[in-house]
Amino acid sequence: MARVNEHYLKLSGGYLFPEIARRIDAFAQANPDAADRIIHCGIGDVTEPLPAAAITAMQTAAGELGRRETFRGYGPASGYDFIREAIAEHDFRGYRLDIDAAEIFVSDGSKGDCGHLLEIFGPGNRVAVTDPVYPVYVDTNVMVGNTGPADGAGGYDGLVYLPCTPDNGFVPEPPEHTLDLIYLCFPNNPTGSMITHEQLRAWVDYAIANDAIILYDVAYQTYISEPDLPRSIYEVEGARRCAIELHSFSKNGGFTGLRCGYTVCPKAVEGTTRDGTRVAMHELWLRRWNTRSNGVSYPVQRAAEALYSSEGKRQVAALVDHYLTNARLLRAGCEAMDWPVWGGANAPYVWVACPDGLGSWDMFDRMLEEANVVVVPGCGFGRCGEGFFRISAFNSRSNVEEVVRRMKALPGHGARRAAP
Amino acid sequence: MARVNEHYLKLSGGYLFPEIARRIDAFAQANPDAADRIIHCGIGDVTEPLPAAAITAMQTAAGELGRRETFRGYGPASGYDFIREAIAEHDFRGYRLDIDAAEIFVSDGSKGDCGHLLEIFGPGNRVAVTDPVYPVYVDTNVMVGNTGPADGAGGYDGLVYLPCTPDNGFVPEPPEHTLDLIYLCFPNNPTGSMITHEQLRAWVDYAIANDAIILYDVAYQTYISEPDLPRSIYEVEGARRCAIELHSFSKNGGFTGLRCGYTVCPKAVEGTTRDGTRVAMHELWLRRWNTRSNGVSYPVQRAAEALYSSEGKRQVAALVDHYLTNARLLRAGCEAMDWPVWGGANAPYVWVACPDGLGSWDMFDRMLEEANVVVVPGCGFGRCGEGFFRISAFNSRSNVEEVVRRMKALPGHGARRAAP
Repeated sequence: MARVNEHYLKLSGGYLFPEIARRIDAFAQANPDAADRIIHCGIGDVTEPLPAAAITAMQTAAGELGRRETFRGYGPASGYDFIREAIAEHDFRGYRLDIDAAEIFVSDGSKGDCGHLLEIFGPGNRVAVTDPVYPVYVDTNVMVGNTGPADGAGGYDGLVYLPCTPDNGFVPEPPEHTLDLIYLCFPNNPTGSMITHEQLRAWVDYAIANDAIILYDVAYQTYISEPDLPRSIYEVEGARRCAIELHSFSKNGGFTGLRCGYTVCPKAVEGTTRDGTRVAMHELWLRRWNTRSNGVSYPVQRAAEALYSSEGKRQVAALVDHYLTNARLLRAGCEAMDWPVWGGANAPYVWVACPDGLGSWDMFDRMLEEANVVVVPGCGFGRCGEGFFRISAFNSRSNVEEVVRRMKALPGHGARRAAP
Repeated sequence: MARVNEHYLKLSGGYLFPEIARRIDAFAQANPDAADRIIHCGIGDVTEPLPAAAITAMQTAAGELGRRETFRGYGPASGYDFIREAIAEHDFRGYRLDIDAAEIFVSDGSKGDCGHLLEIFGPGNRVAVTDPVYPVYVDTNVMVGNTGPADGAGGYDGLVYLPCTPDNGFVPEPPEHTLDLIYLCFPNNPTGSMITHEQLRAWVDYAIANDAIILYDVAYQTYISEPDLPRSIYEVEGARRCAIELHSFSKNGGFTGLRCGYTVCPKAVEGTTRDGTRVAMHELWLRRWNTRSNGVSYPVQRAAEALYSSEGKRQVAALVDHYLTNARLLRAGCEAMDWPVWGGANAPYVWVACPDGLGSWDMFDRMLEEANVVVVPGCGFGRCGEGFFRISAFNSRSNVEEVVRRMKALPGHGARRAAP
């Protein structure tokens, strides 16, 4: 009889966003008049039009496929040279980072890459994630058997959680004990926090000392506004030996629906077999792509390439500026409420402590019911997220301004502010 | 220290097509004058322009993303309703097959699906493939640990090979012993053979009796010309309980570079846990997509939908007719050479016994060196493929006619025919 992957059965509840969708549906059904007023600041999905450069490139590429002399069939599994070269040049060499086009693997998005990367690692790794954390890191580890069962408190046995709290500025320090695989994401989803060079260097040094590998997610790289902060882990000496970096075109180019991202797997990153043989992760990753993929849609690769043109760069900068301004408005709105708030400066997310001692889901319900605004309950990102909520800045300006107005009009707000 | 997935290290040699590419490069370097004459009938990659309906749909969809009111971000992980409904209607309900849109999972291609599907199955399954076989089925099983090491004869320990030879018309019968997961592909790659209703019913009955699951690959479905042959396994009573079907838009719509396909996972297909609990594979597959993917590029989904329009259907039919005529010409060419030949009637592949007792790679080299034609050595598809080679019909008409001319002009051909 056909055996199922029983690790799937350990997954507790649904994925966060389906649960949010369920509550929104229930509210809208019960309050049809309010349904049209709902403003979504939940899932981090972009709202503004795709850069014109990307659209033109995609349409031109689609047209090429209609003529025999310019038709293209199967492309290279890890991406065409034109896009890998553009990435290496503009995202790395332009910043004096030593990354070669052959070390870049173009994919249909960073969410997929999070799961795919686990395919080249074996069992027996001690895996660490931050808490709170992007749930996909956790769930994909559960699904491949890197954890034990759910622990009844929102986590999983066998997974190492690195607490991120106001006390450490939401940036964990390397632990005393050893780890083998470490997920780090900066600018951080969900807290919007950023790591310094010094803090990142501590992690790279730790990884080298412990022969660990860091999976460094920079999906929100373009939102880094302060010039002294690290855009890439490869700015740190030694990271070429211990880090794989995940990139996305979703949040800079607005590609959430177009689907394109990439990973950087330097040739110097090595893993180990049980008998101690050193293996280049690059070779396994290349084999993974050659055997399991036929690459990304050609017109989508051309659209991504166009983001690196001078026109594309201007359009990306305008998009990012739009969302960052939103983030600053949301942050200022929270500050005006005296709600403790983080993020929103180098990231499109604002992370807020729930007022009045409310729990995360209670605050979610309150924002939905009283302001008709959808946020994400912090506990959906992990235990340390309890008592917080995330507001996404991916929205139109008018919606963001309206969200701030509605927050300020929340029942009890004036009363609370008026208390001595 | 970070542990690697050691199953990757069992993989013997490179994937077939990289080895072919290596030999072509070596030949072209040594024979620069002949390099321009090379005609590729190797990898099954389409050559003719994309249907105009698909291009228009893709360009229109890309344009929608440039306006705020029609912009779309994240789509459903398993595909938009518009394409799932079109598939259910045109590929199933139109043939009176009971498949619902919710049972369809849109992907970025069938090659990916072959590997992804293994994620929802556990260890301990007895997995069967045909021999010869599409190498991706085998390699993906090796990579997830469903096999032992390479056996030194082109196979892997622990994998069950079902011999396909001229004696059984390249269609295996169910074995006496039990299997848990069975890959079947009809029209077959590489042999071009087709299965009858009766033969397919024997497999469905076997799967139900043994609580096994059939992974049924119909990437070449549109090439079935004879009306009495099964287009889908769901034409067989009971298949809804034991079969997952893999579909591709690559070989009908010419989507090899655009990337789109789909799987059908009926809700009635169940696997089993070690303690005997029954689990709907549909639930696991849905969870897999929700957690590991953000779906297929929106404009690509629109392009696939357009293949089901009346204009799109006409254009697909014309493409398939073009390649099928090529296949018939190639088959006739082989017959004129007195080379035993199969396929080419309901499939875009012609499967040929190597003449003069040549081995597969010798024949590959001979075709490359003497005719400057690239074929695929049968042994690349498995032990039972030794002594055969595959010719792909994916080419222009003029190239196919030239291939036939060059085959007939092969040195020694006239001499052999003249012998008593």
